[in-house]
Amino acid sequence: MTKIAGGFGASELFQFLRDGEPRTRAELAQLTGLARSTISLRIDELLQHGLITPVGEAVSTGGRPPAQIALNPGARVVVAADLGVTHGRVAITDLSGAILSHVLEDLVIANGPVEVLDWLALTITKLMTECGRPLADLVAVGIGLPGPVEHESGKPTNPPIMPGWDGFDVPAYLAETFPVPILVDNDVNIMALGERAMGWPDTEDIIYVKVSTGIGSGIIGGGVLQRGAQGIAGDIGHIRIPRGTGVVCKCGNEGCLEAVAGSPAIIADLRGAGHDVSTVADLVALVKSGDTGAIQAVRQAGRDIGEVLTVCVSIVNPSVITIGGALAQAGEHIIAGVREVVYSRATPFAAEYLSIVQSRAGEMAGVAGASIMAVERALSPEGIDGMGAAKAATGD
Amino acid sequence: MTKIAGGFGASELFQFLRDGEPRTRAELAQLTGLARSTISLRIDELLQHGLITPVGEAVSTGGRPPAQIALNPGARVVVAADLGVTHGRVAITDLSGAILSHVLEDLVIANGPVEVLDWLALTITKLMTECGRPLADLVAVGIGLPGPVEHESGKPTNPPIMPGWDGFDVPAYLAETFPVPILVDNDVNIMALGERAMGWPDTEDIIYVKVSTGIGSGIIGGGVLQRGAQGIAGDIGHIRIPRGTGVVCKCGNEGCLEAVAGSPAIIADLRGAGHDVSTVADLVALVKSGDTGAIQAVRQAGRDIGEVLTVCVSIVNPSVITIGGALAQAGEHIIAGVREVVYSRATPFAAEYLSIVQSRAGEMAGVAGASIMAVERALSPEGIDGMGAAKAATGD
Repeated sequence: MTKIAGGFGASELFQFLRDGEPRTRAELAQLTGLARSTISLRIDELLQHGLITPVGEAVSTGGRPPAQIALNPGARVVVAADLGVTHGRVAITDLSGAILSHVLEDLVIANGPVEVLDWLALTITKLMTECGRPLADLVAVGIGLPGPVEHESGKPTNPPIMPGWDGFDVPAYLAETFPVPILVDNDVNIMALGERAMGWPDTEDIIYVKVSTGIGSGIIGGGVLQRGAQGIAGDIGHIRIPRGTGVVCKCGNEGCLEAVAGSPAIIADLRGAGHDVSTVADLVALVKSGDTGAIQAVRQAGRDIGEVLTVCVSIVNPSVITIGGALAQAGEHIIAGVREVVYSRATPFAAEYLSIVQSRAGEMAGVAGASIMAVERALSPEGIDGMGAAKAATGD
Repeated sequence: MTKIAGGFGASELFQFLRDGEPRTRAELAQLTGLARSTISLRIDELLQHGLITPVGEAVSTGGRPPAQIALNPGARVVVAADLGVTHGRVAITDLSGAILSHVLEDLVIANGPVEVLDWLALTITKLMTECGRPLADLVAVGIGLPGPVEHESGKPTNPPIMPGWDGFDVPAYLAETFPVPILVDNDVNIMALGERAMGWPDTEDIIYVKVSTGIGSGIIGGGVLQRGAQGIAGDIGHIRIPRGTGVVCKCGNEGCLEAVAGSPAIIADLRGAGHDVSTVADLVALVKSGDTGAIQAVRQAGRDIGEVLTVCVSIVNPSVITIGGALAQAGEHIIAGVREVVYSRATPFAAEYLSIVQSRAGEMAGVAGASIMAVERALSPEGIDGMGAAKAATGD
């Protein structure tokens, strides 16, 4: 029998508190579809912990004016960490996702969980001091990792580029230092959450595509992040494409999208043609300088990605596809390639209302998503229960 | 601002009531992740309407023995209708999905909504009489239609093979006769719901594939049916496959899976080779008779479907793919073709725990899913509210 994680209803209520707009209980009941009595219970819990606060007076429809409530964003804080293959971006945010302190540092994920998580713990402590908040204010930690993660347990599973991390209990290890809920997910998944929150709060079906060294996607369907059975839903980088025939991918298969359209393949091709380019940044600069060869290469990568996204459109039926990641900074050329293929090949009805655009969240997508994941848990019934215990433990 | 349909929490609680097993409130709170107080409120509402009932006494952990409750399946009934292109299957079921009366009749969906829905209304009335239940016992109607449906409004949108149905307000039309919630969805979507309920109740990520004249799929992700932005998520029949080059589909595109691997294409090929075969039933019989040509044709269709499902596996990361529809009755040959391609081509980690099997629900998948969709709404807070009004209106 499956246990539904996170406390059901937590996300729906949170969705309508996060924007910070004051609302009455009746409005929240209407928006979430929850019974009035259920809303009142949840609201009372949140009020008791100071996580939401009464504000002003709503216009009455007769009788006692119904009190409005709103999120009290500064009441507590969360950690939002986006750990990549070669960098770590960590932020302390308030409950609305506003960044209070923030750091971006080089970090080698392949150095293993102990070294990386010790660095993270130290960084969290520093950032909390920097923004003048006691550790007792911390209510949850959200972390994105560059590999498959079993979200329920927070353990990476079979991560191809993270030696030493397979099955490592990330929440248990960090909980020794921070006795709060610790949520872990794949980095592209949290980027999809962040992209939606920062750019498309009213969109229920969205695919966020990260194009960089690797190519991956995070899928939100019916308003909910889709993780799949092993936490690898949206793993489009290893779908075979026709142009990949004969190209061996580092995963061991042949013809993977990532092996053909990821930045290393483009860079290798351009170097072969005599260009002086070795990093994604070089490649983006070359495209922006107007180099025709680089522009054509990036546009072709867009077409390759479009081949796979055409199929995604039939399967997921999104209303928005957003393209992010380092290579998306090469601008309109990659999007143009994607659109060229998707709009000519997808079924007309699915393509009719589909937007394909550049990411709105940009490089902050991961941190934004990690913050949301953490705050959502903190405001859930489970999170609230734990909060009582944590406060008691710290003598607050 | 999006309104969340159906009352949040309805589905989670219902999921643990549907199996009919008696449980305490504490157990339900633990299983759903709901606050105890929230569970109690919902339970009280359901008890008040007789939809659930107290049963026996649970083993106490000290103090007053906590009362167990269970679904009271016979308290009310719903209509479950699976309307295909050339047939209609309608059932009256109790709240557990058990069929009380049932009919399968020829029906031409292309005759338009008024004729079809008038037939449906008459059939419902007959079936209710047949099983000896007054109309006041009816709490919801669930309907599957063979085309895209905007689930929120219950209106078909752009259905290619349903002239006259585009934008028709199915719930409003039927509500003139039956003043209860009327839920409408695409037929393959409700088949996926039925397949999961009848065969895989503990599986959160599952793809149900219908293979017949058309080819389509219903996707359940994270335990929730994925409909997509226009209600056409899972529309795999119009994904292009390499073997389809030069084959024009009736949708107007070229190379669609359905145009290559649907039963009309297989039948045309076999007739061209001199076989006497004109219907899906003929084809299934020919395969079962051991005809090598027919077996090879069906196995190749399985491979073609496998090409597309390989991509679905990367995008959805299901733990189960089930194959249903009329052509699935051709037995192991179609599944063998699907497996041959998916297991050799999907990424190893996604394929490692993936089962590909024949549908367990068989031809009752649609009716089972329509019943679930109807009961779920009936037991939701919204459904309960409406129930009070309906009972009052009928003087009960």
